[in-house]
Amino acid sequence: MSSSPAKKQNTGGQKGVVVLAYSGGLDTSCILLWLIEQGYEVVAYTADVGQDDDFEAVKKKALQCGAKKYVVKDLKKDFVVENIWPSIQANGRYEDRYLMGTSLARPCITKGMMEVVKEESAQFISHGATGKGNDQIRMELAAYALRPDIEIIAPWKMPEFYNRFHGRTDLFEYAKMNNISLPVTPSAPWSMDGNLMHISYEAGILEDPKTVAPSSMFQMTADPLKSPDEPDQIEIEFKHGVPVKVKNLKDGTEKNDALELYLYLNELGGKHGIGRIDIVENRYIGMKSRGVYECPAATILIEAHLDIENVTMDKAMRRVKQELSLRFSEQVYEGYWYSPENEFVRHCIHKSQEHVEGFVNVLLFKGRAHVTGRHSPKSLYNEELVSMDVKGDYEPLDAKGFIKVNAVR
Amino acid sequence: MSSSPAKKQNTGGQKGVVVLAYSGGLDTSCILLWLIEQGYEVVAYTADVGQDDDFEAVKKKALQCGAKKYVVKDLKKDFVVENIWPSIQANGRYEDRYLMGTSLARPCITKGMMEVVKEESAQFISHGATGKGNDQIRMELAAYALRPDIEIIAPWKMPEFYNRFHGRTDLFEYAKMNNISLPVTPSAPWSMDGNLMHISYEAGILEDPKTVAPSSMFQMTADPLKSPDEPDQIEIEFKHGVPVKVKNLKDGTEKNDALELYLYLNELGGKHGIGRIDIVENRYIGMKSRGVYECPAATILIEAHLDIENVTMDKAMRRVKQELSLRFSEQVYEGYWYSPENEFVRHCIHKSQEHVEGFVNVLLFKGRAHVTGRHSPKSLYNEELVSMDVKGDYEPLDAKGFIKVNAVR
Amino acid sequence: MSSSPAKKQNTGGQKGVVVLAYSGGLDTSCILLWLIEQGYEVVAYTADVGQDDDFEAVKKKALQCGAKKYVVKDLKKDFVVENIWPSIQANGRYEDRYLMGTSLARPCITKGMMEVVKEESAQFISHGATGKGNDQIRMELAAYALRPDIEIIAPWKMPEFYNRFHGRTDLFEYAKMNNISLPVTPSAPWSMDGNLMHISYEAGILEDPKTVAPSSMFQMTADPLKSPDEPDQIEIEFKHGVPVKVKNLKDGTEKNDALELYLYLNELGGKHGIGRIDIVENRYIGMKSRGVYECPAATILIEAHLDIENVTMDKAMRRVKQELSLRFSEQVYEGYWYSPENEFVRHCIHKSQEHVEGFVNVLLFKGRAHVTGRHSPKSLYNEELVSMDVKGDYEPLDAKGFIKVNAVR
Amino acid sequence: MSSSPAKKQNTGGQKGVVVLAYSGGLDTSCILLWLIEQGYEVVAYTADVGQDDDFEAVKKKALQCGAKKYVVKDLKKDFVVENIWPSIQANGRYEDRYLMGTSLARPCITKGMMEVVKEESAQFISHGATGKGNDQIRMELAAYALRPDIEIIAPWKMPEFYNRFHGRTDLFEYAKMNNISLPVTPSAPWSMDGNLMHISYEAGILEDPKTVAPSSMFQMTADPLKSPDEPDQIEIEFKHGVPVKVKNLKDGTEKNDALELYLYLNELGGKHGIGRIDIVENRYIGMKSRGVYECPAATILIEAHLDIENVTMDKAMRRVKQELSLRFSEQVYEGYWYSPENEFVRHCIHKSQEHVEGFVNVLLFKGRAHVTGRHSPKSLYNEELVSMDVKGDYEPLDAKGFIKVNAVR
Repeated sequence: MSSSPAKKQNTGGQKGVVVLAYSGGLDTSCILLWLIEQGYEVVAYTADVGQDDDFEAVKKKALQCGAKKYVVKDLKKDFVVENIWPSIQANGRYEDRYLMGTSLARPCITKGMMEVVKEESAQFISHGATGKGNDQIRMELAAYALRPDIEIIAPWKMPEFYNRFHGRTDLFEYAKMNNISLPVTPSAPWSMDGNLMHISYEAGILEDPKTVAPSSMFQMTADPLKSPDEPDQIEIEFKHGVPVKVKNLKDGTEKNDALELYLYLNELGGKHGIGRIDIVENRYIGMKSRGVYECPAATILIEAHLDIENVTMDKAMRRVKQELSLRFSEQVYEGYWYSPENEFVRHCIHKSQEHVEGFVNVLLFKGRAHVTGRHSPKSLYNEELVSMDVKGDYEPLDAKGFIKVNAVR
Repeated sequence: MSSSPAKKQNTGGQKGVVVLAYSGGLDTSCILLWLIEQGYEVVAYTADVGQDDDFEAVKKKALQCGAKKYVVKDLKKDFVVENIWPSIQANGRYEDRYLMGTSLARPCITKGMMEVVKEESAQFISHGATGKGNDQIRMELAAYALRPDIEIIAPWKMPEFYNRFHGRTDLFEYAKMNNISLPVTPSAPWSMDGNLMHISYEAGILEDPKTVAPSSMFQMTADPLKSPDEPDQIEIEFKHGVPVKVKNLKDGTEKNDALELYLYLNELGGKHGIGRIDIVENRYIGMKSRGVYECPAATILIEAHLDIENVTMDKAMRRVKQELSLRFSEQVYEGYWYSPENEFVRHCIHKSQEHVEGFVNVLLFKGRAHVTGRHSPKSLYNEELVSMDVKGDYEPLDAKGFIKVNAVR
Repeated sequence: MSSSPAKKQNTGGQKGVVVLAYSGGLDTSCILLWLIEQGYEVVAYTADVGQDDDFEAVKKKALQCGAKKYVVKDLKKDFVVENIWPSIQANGRYEDRYLMGTSLARPCITKGMMEVVKEESAQFISHGATGKGNDQIRMELAAYALRPDIEIIAPWKMPEFYNRFHGRTDLFEYAKMNNISLPVTPSAPWSMDGNLMHISYEAGILEDPKTVAPSSMFQMTADPLKSPDEPDQIEIEFKHGVPVKVKNLKDGTEKNDALELYLYLNELGGKHGIGRIDIVENRYIGMKSRGVYECPAATILIEAHLDIENVTMDKAMRRVKQELSLRFSEQVYEGYWYSPENEFVRHCIHKSQEHVEGFVNVLLFKGRAHVTGRHSPKSLYNEELVSMDVKGDYEPLDAKGFIKVNAVR
Repeated sequence: MSSSPAKKQNTGGQKGVVVLAYSGGLDTSCILLWLIEQGYEVVAYTADVGQDDDFEAVKKKALQCGAKKYVVKDLKKDFVVENIWPSIQANGRYEDRYLMGTSLARPCITKGMMEVVKEESAQFISHGATGKGNDQIRMELAAYALRPDIEIIAPWKMPEFYNRFHGRTDLFEYAKMNNISLPVTPSAPWSMDGNLMHISYEAGILEDPKTVAPSSMFQMTADPLKSPDEPDQIEIEFKHGVPVKVKNLKDGTEKNDALELYLYLNELGGKHGIGRIDIVENRYIGMKSRGVYECPAATILIEAHLDIENVTMDKAMRRVKQELSLRFSEQVYEGYWYSPENEFVRHCIHKSQEHVEGFVNVLLFKGRAHVTGRHSPKSLYNEELVSMDVKGDYEPLDAKGFIKVNAVR
């Protein structure tokens, strides 16, 4: 590290107020110190989107580092209702597999941050994301969309910062010089990001895409090899393409509240090892990245939603909606939640869900959510017509004409 | 039944030669008898696409019914190479879930049939499909595409037939009058269609979409609740987007031949209960239909192909190819294999697979094929670039510009 | 003609009431006679969608043929507002060129017909379209959509009719036997269909796709070779993607009413020979058909709408909307106006037009509508940003990063 | 201007060799001087893509500025065959209207430049594009694609350059100090870029999107108000979707060579004022830009190609190809010619043109290319089938079944 010892030149924050996305970890603690050193007043901000954090400890650390204030916003329910539900309606999957747990949380976190910006009359925001990931893009695009005049301080993209701190050792030393105590636990050989929707693991030993992820890594889901030998059976009720009730058919437990039913599905899905994927995905900025994810509730919900949607939605309409869903996932993954195109696509998808309602039965067992039956008051399924014994709305002869005409080409 | 007893007016087939798709069952046996009664010569034809049939018994029955000849064509390898492989390349799934085991077999079966038509100088083909299913469409469209002048006799769409035979009882009686012995086994409470790719179950008790499919119904796959408690680990090698080798990492078994490796994956997948789905789908002719499928090998292969494809294919190209894959699945499901558009789409998808090669590790366990790692000589994955510690081809500052420019809108 | 002289067996219409789409021409007059002969009561119906017809004469003929009643519905304004406007919003063009004047009129005509069905408590509808065109499909699909239980009598698809009347001579004779006087004017060597949106010409000498359409054929537009040597200049104001005012910049004429401004644009466009196209298109049922169309107002409006839309709509949103527009055109052309998918697509496109407003200047001259300028209160066009002399929201350096990052692949 | 007088510190180019895209104008002459001042050896390069330039004069200026060498590459035929033809096959139009004359030239120019880089063993390229336009992106992306290791010196994005030269006055003075004589002609009140495909006009007085472009501005096309009162009639022959012959039906002139026929169509189209458009488009980097273009030959060719394509291509295949064409245009406009996705899309589109051949008659008159007829040996147009008098491959009854089945939904 080339710099002289920082003397916490807390000169009163004459450069203005920064809201810093703060986790309490080494990176953002050092950024906090550094921002103060640069002459900013810092409001440390944590969004509670269901990650496994001790906010009291984070607060303590923030204040110890010199933050003017620490704000934690409980966004758990907002996250489920405003971000996850639209993605369930869209059957949102990036590149066919990734359910976008991080991508969906970003606009929620940033929205909360911009509220803090307003409450604290801040002029700047800052974050600890590097210049290679998707997060910086998602967060910064959302921030610019919500407040076009905001100024973003992204130290890992500023030469004065990244040329000074070359790695964890430099950061560690910098913290020490500033009398900041650090977790003594050795960092895991991968990086990890979590919220109530999922935990993602990447980097470290996972960077080699052929390395098998260690079983001990996972925190939300049991290893299917060791999960219960007895399945659970649930019934999920949908209205407007969104779950409104989950019922455990074994013990009768029922959940109606959005957040509660989501957490309950996480619990059940996690117990049965559901929602793990291991993929190589294309990041926004082109490069490929290997990620391992666990995402129990959403995995179950998308299986169930795909099912009830097909029961209640017209075939040709489904095709139009499917294209929109692809666009939705690409846009969300790339950080364009707050954009005219994503707002438009969300509006259209929402409209398509008007009649998507009914009940889906799902068996949860050893890593798989398996749909076993469904029924709906708005079913377009016509049992009589489909039957081979009963004549329905059209005659066998009609089918002959249909084919003959289609073969004319 | 309104008709007089058929006297097998085998008048020498003065109306010409019909090739009949013949299964040996009640329906097609009656159609065989009826065609002869109408004055046709009948060549009974069975395509061997890996279904579980006793072709000797079928032959005996055909000749007993009065067929001039019985022809069975072994199309198993053709089916895998010419029909299933292109669908693996396309990640072919109809409405996100159905792997199209029946749809893919139809063009193969029909192509074999048209060869028999040619060999036997026939003018007609006939089949036992009804006017409500997809099969009639797929088979007839393929037949017209291959031989625009062919004439199709589809008794279940001809008033003179369907007004005479109102159900199984009438057919049974008609067969009896013609001295055709019938299987005494009671028919299952569903209908079923199988080949080496899958078995589909529909109708009967399955018509009610909330009825859970009975465990005893399945023939290719074990019930995941009862499948082995030990997983299998395999490595699949792809070249040009198609599997060229499967290796069992436990016992070292290797398969290189297309048909052999496919059957081997069926065996392993079936053992672990992989490939069952239960869906409501939109048939070509609009109505909705509930189907239960088991499709072990293709389920494993599509998981693995999705994975290796993403490792080796450029992101923007993947998006173009993904749209083509949607078209592929719609076209194949609707029976347009032999059409200019599907030939075009297959050509394009094939081209996209030029560099899709490498090795995928898959864990098979309790109903799920779970990808755990992969590597490829043509990987576009750049471990160094993705790493957070090493500077790659672009500077952190570049990312800043990228976002700023994208936010201009 | 194989039948015995029809004796107008007007037996009181014991078979029920038919609403017949009636034009007063040879075909539909014969159908009217024939329906009565078959025992139906007939209500003759004409939709006034702006075609050049003498409804009094048509009425006289209908009653003379034995119709119980004649109903003409003025649907001109409905047609403009409910059918043409959505297509302008969609930039609706089938296969890149055809503005769908007939396709858009069909749902309007059929909707009016179904109102007559209701008013007259009819059980049947009938029409004179043949089994090869798009019209039968569009009309019948719309009718089934609006009244799933309606029964359609389409004589040109009924063997008892088409085997009796083999061509115009048979029809002529049948009319004569029924004492129906016929137009003595020789029919044109093409067929023609018109409404306020367009006139289409096809068949006859036009069937050979290399035959040049004769100049004398056109009725709505002047030959550009002979149109005025002086252009007209107009300004069109849009709100929500729909024209709300047209102003002639030469003489100051202004039109605000939807129907009036549409007819005024027809007049101006027609005067300058605007809106002629000569194409080979793919009919719904696969075959190719050569059509010549003249469509003045819509040609001008789509040019202008494309322009103002691009000024006011975000780029990424435009792409999503463009895909929807393709679907819109395919669906409308194929007769699916009254379908879940087209209703959905129309809803989405309508939503996309929220901010599409402003003024477009168009020069009308010798067969071309040429946009020369535009301005909008909701313009996303940022004159300062685009300028090369003024620094806008981003720095030149940002562009460097943007490109570098995009080139990483 | 903040800098001290440049003393042409031609220190022998110790920093290496730069190939500079050089036009002979003020900007690139100053960049040439500045690069030498910075210590580079400069090879000045001009691509001859048919723009109206005096290459001898440009050469003289380059050498006078101190260039080590001047290279002009005649790329006219390459441009037509390798870049314009694929776009004709694609009916390439960005945002429905812009034929991409600049976008298509960029990869051609850059390819030539990279050949010079190789011939001259250069390590750098440089250009005079600013950080706001599409050109920088197209050129730099193409350069990186062809030579991932190339280093690009883009002075208008380098603070040391753009902070020194704030506008034309600074540049003018800098040139003067370096004893470079300058054109005394006042610059036009717009900027302009031309090649054999088109001339584009933007900026200056055109920045206000409601300003009507002055008639005097246009250089390739006559004002339709003053163009000949006599039309020209031509016949264009296509093979594989590409024009292979143009015949003037009036005077019998024939052109078979790609470049010659293209230039001939420019001449005829220009004479009749064909190919002018005035639009607001979305630049890659989001902002909107008003552009006026004249593009005679391509306008005629796309009209004709759309026509012959529809005559010879299956309907369903056309839809797939149409989507690919949209992607083609977006990719080309955004500078991704040399990318896996555009190479893939070009391959697919090329494949789709296998049977696109035949003759199209086009009338050229007063700003419009109007197709009047066509014929093709590979026509899918079936005159008999389409006829209303002759029964074709299917019966009227078949149409009834077709509709009934389609209405089941």
